[in-house]
Amino acid sequence: MMPFAFNAPSEDKSELEDAGDFTPRFDDRGLITAIVTDAHDGELLMVAHMNAKALALTIQTGKAHYFSRSRGKLWLKGETSGNIQTVKEIRTDCDQDAIWLKVEVAGHDATCHTGRRSCFYRTVSLEDGKPMLAIADDERQFDPHEVYGKQP
Amino acid sequence: MMPFAFNAPSEDKSELEDAGDFTPRFDDRGLITAIVTDAHDGELLMVAHMNAKALALTIQTGKAHYFSRSRGKLWLKGETSGNIQTVKEIRTDCDQDAIWLKVEVAGHDATCHTGRRSCFYRTVSLEDGKPMLAIADDERQFDPHEVYGKQP
Repeated sequence: MMPFAFNAPSEDKSELEDAGDFTPRFDDRGLITAIVTDAHDGELLMVAHMNAKALALTIQTGKAHYFSRSRGKLWLKGETSGNIQTVKEIRTDCDQDAIWLKVEVAGHDATCHTGRRSCFYRTVSLEDGKPMLAIADDERQFDPHEVYGKQP
Repeated sequence: MMPFAFNAPSEDKSELEDAGDFTPRFDDRGLITAIVTDAHDGELLMVAHMNAKALALTIQTGKAHYFSRSRGKLWLKGETSGNIQTVKEIRTDCDQDAIWLKVEVAGHDATCHTGRRSCFYRTVSLEDGKPMLAIADDERQFDPHEVYGKQP
């Protein structure tokens, strides 16, 4: 599928805040932040990045596509694990530099590559003045070694 | 208050995914993405950025601090509007490059500078093949002109 191109954002802040043209503001790396929640219960599942192509393909196909900064390439979420994200609603914020996807997750109903439902499975708190992590959710929906093999 | 310093993140991906030291991974601009939801009903309120100082102060004081990329400075959310965010829980994701804050919002119970509860007040959809915005929430909790005066 040929992804469409977005119009350039207005320089006028108040125009960016209105209804009308969706003119996403990509950063100097050409990326925009995407927040992903479960369409059913609102759980925060992941945060990722999109370039213009990934965002256009997401809107056109209804399946979440991202841009992997570490691998430097476009990525259909779930192409390996089967945990495809079907987009039920897309929102953007006041200055159009972030995207919110409400999704239904197929496959194992898991989003994190560690096998957990959400990537945000740890809490941060101060212990003896030091910032420490504790695991809040350790339930695995799938075995990452089985699904990804030797891949990270 | 003197903000503490974070330890450097491990090069070992599996160490980053465990419990233990919180070692946030700031990007090449020294920033990390922060996702902010309402501690009571889970509504996505805003996305912002933090430098190490903003993140340390947020953890130490329990009040959300951010780094404004447009103004190039540290920012206590609500210092002008009164809509201070009290942090009830902090989480991080699998590779420690994003932060999730669950907050209670004081003042007008509004987060967006337009006066709305959430910055994500618009939906994105295709109309005649073009990506368009529609306003899903137009309820203002405060009058931005009254609160910010001539400031944006």
